[in-house]
Amino acid sequence: MSFEQMWRELATVGRSAKSGGYFRQPFSSAERECAVWFEEECARRSLDITRDGNGNVIAWWRPAGATGRGVLTGSHLDSVLDGGAYDGPLGVVSALAAVEVLQGRGFTPSKPIGIGSFVEEEGSRFGLACLGSRLLTGATSASAACELKDRDGVGLLDAMSDAGIEPDLGPSDLLDQVDCFVELHVEQGRDLVDRGVPVGVADMIWPHGRYRFDFTGEANHAGTTRMEDRRDPMLTYAMTALVANEQARRSGQRATFGRVDVQPNGTNAVPSRVTAWLDARAESSEHLESMLAEIERLAEERSGSDGTAVQVTAESVSSAVHFDRDLAHRIAAQEPGERWPIIATMAGHDAGVLCAAGVPTAMLFVRNPTGVSHSPEEFAEMGDCLAGVDALADTLERLSG
Amino acid sequence: MSFEQMWRELATVGRSAKSGGYFRQPFSSAERECAVWFEEECARRSLDITRDGNGNVIAWWRPAGATGRGVLTGSHLDSVLDGGAYDGPLGVVSALAAVEVLQGRGFTPSKPIGIGSFVEEEGSRFGLACLGSRLLTGATSASAACELKDRDGVGLLDAMSDAGIEPDLGPSDLLDQVDCFVELHVEQGRDLVDRGVPVGVADMIWPHGRYRFDFTGEANHAGTTRMEDRRDPMLTYAMTALVANEQARRSGQRATFGRVDVQPNGTNAVPSRVTAWLDARAESSEHLESMLAEIERLAEERSGSDGTAVQVTAESVSSAVHFDRDLAHRIAAQEPGERWPIIATMAGHDAGVLCAAGVPTAMLFVRNPTGVSHSPEEFAEMGDCLAGVDALADTLERLSG
Repeated sequence: MSFEQMWRELATVGRSAKSGGYFRQPFSSAERECAVWFEEECARRSLDITRDGNGNVIAWWRPAGATGRGVLTGSHLDSVLDGGAYDGPLGVVSALAAVEVLQGRGFTPSKPIGIGSFVEEEGSRFGLACLGSRLLTGATSASAACELKDRDGVGLLDAMSDAGIEPDLGPSDLLDQVDCFVELHVEQGRDLVDRGVPVGVADMIWPHGRYRFDFTGEANHAGTTRMEDRRDPMLTYAMTALVANEQARRSGQRATFGRVDVQPNGTNAVPSRVTAWLDARAESSEHLESMLAEIERLAEERSGSDGTAVQVTAESVSSAVHFDRDLAHRIAAQEPGERWPIIATMAGHDAGVLCAAGVPTAMLFVRNPTGVSHSPEEFAEMGDCLAGVDALADTLERLSG
Repeated sequence: MSFEQMWRELATVGRSAKSGGYFRQPFSSAERECAVWFEEECARRSLDITRDGNGNVIAWWRPAGATGRGVLTGSHLDSVLDGGAYDGPLGVVSALAAVEVLQGRGFTPSKPIGIGSFVEEEGSRFGLACLGSRLLTGATSASAACELKDRDGVGLLDAMSDAGIEPDLGPSDLLDQVDCFVELHVEQGRDLVDRGVPVGVADMIWPHGRYRFDFTGEANHAGTTRMEDRRDPMLTYAMTALVANEQARRSGQRATFGRVDVQPNGTNAVPSRVTAWLDARAESSEHLESMLAEIERLAEERSGSDGTAVQVTAESVSSAVHFDRDLAHRIAAQEPGERWPIIATMAGHDAGVLCAAGVPTAMLFVRNPTGVSHSPEEFAEMGDCLAGVDALADTLERLSG
């Protein structure tokens, strides 16, 4: 089945008719429908499907003569809440299409080629990005993962069981046969648009931290309590959100408060507590730390005048990831005389987790004309998607030949 | 049964073991438990229970010789989310106790005495405060109420049916027998604390508006989108929340953003939309309007620089309520030479709705040492509660004698 046909088949799964965005949270019915679809496509190609107890899947193309450790590609099938169609599924569907391209070319690899699908890459349900690959590589412990709960208080193990997966969290032998990993992904900025090319190769990921800010004050009646008698944590939060934006703007980094939880969240009640999550990224760990320190300092300064308290908890912090330089340059040199540009990415990916675990890794990016991702506006032209499939096929051919 | 016994019985219903606050949203199991308890207490006193199709109840003490239109007291049993024990139930339980005090005095009224319990006074579930009394008096139409939905998308009619109430929304004859209304309530500020008296009488309610602010921007990836490429509605909201506070502070009025809903509310996504509700109150409608206009102007100014849009919708606006001046002064003059102080209240009450509908109305307030309400910290000393019961009994005796 062609890339276009597969893309059409997946396009309706978990799509909101209202926003046009996707709701494919891990272990939800929509995400499971994608997972079943993926395994069916693998079975149709006679790939050898392997699974672990974290919910990750790798399907191997291992024709006669293909021996030893193999070349892994693939990505993830889950989305952020109201996300786009491309972030994740583009890498999985392109991998299936690339194997078909290679089979069409009559190519027989001398190493196996694997297509991976890692669970909860976005962290949109349990708050920890790349959960599947982190468990698989031991970057997150099984016991820590057991504590994770979604917004409705459902624990990870229960969510998996409800989805028909028997959980057995922790490192598995799923990666034992992996020699290197190339993840294809839609671009999430305008770098390739500015450069006027359909494909690029990433050689690093910026450091990235998620920090929970708990602002606490005193619940009170919104009508009767004099302004000067209040301890309103919403004010401290509001100032902190503005300050974070300003700090990131000034230093050329990224800082976002995109998730907020207010207690009791009543129209006529001064809140007792506002919890908000800061997503911060910077070109180096030093830049990240100094930006966070400044945001914290200013939040605490404001909490002093609001009579509130602020507590900051690092929920996850990832250092810079430097992909395998040789691998990236081998991928970039597609044709004699033609090179895909080498770029950086500001987003975390399973590729970053596998790289940190010692797997030689690099990434391919496909141009996104909107530059927008994590949104229904996320897009890639079909021609660029097909260029991505070809680039991936060429890469797999080179690495497994 | 004494006030203290009744208070103890109700104390556990809908109480969160974690916060100590109350969750008695209309037509929830906790609120229904309170409602059943109320009717049982009325039945125990042989009161004549009347109900309407909005969920409101009035129980009449109509001994032989008590004829014509009667004196109504009572309040409501619902709470805000994580609210206090006193706001609402104090008025209902004090009414039951006051009738018992009068019966203990051997007093026989020449007019009936009614105890009312009005539903959804807080607007904590369907967003419209005093919903029960507004439907009863026609201030809100049945068709408008049919459109109301709670946060989970459950409509008012379904919520009522689920609670075993057969809905028949709109004006009813429940008030036909009412001559005047005296609502007793816990104070929601520190006025009586400052004055050093346990009881006060309110003669007006400040004008009050609830406005929905819809801030819209563009969802995007929190890591990859350059700060300068964003249209982040969280920033516009944050500035508006700070501005509202500042405006209210300056002018001695009240402005609060206590409820926020973010879409998609993901840690790594720039929001597409932030909806926030402004609760604003002022000493006059002119003050309210000019404060709102200034907040709107500053929100729009900021949205211009954020590349976002802001739309403001008035969800409910109540004018100032001036209670019956004569009635208030008759209530205040408790004993020869002793007067309860006359105060204003900044909170909406069913008393305000009945007053606006032409029922002569006033309110009694009981001192709250914390000054805090809509919070687990809301409190009244038992001695002050009993002083409130006595003041209410005296008032009912005077008005029905």
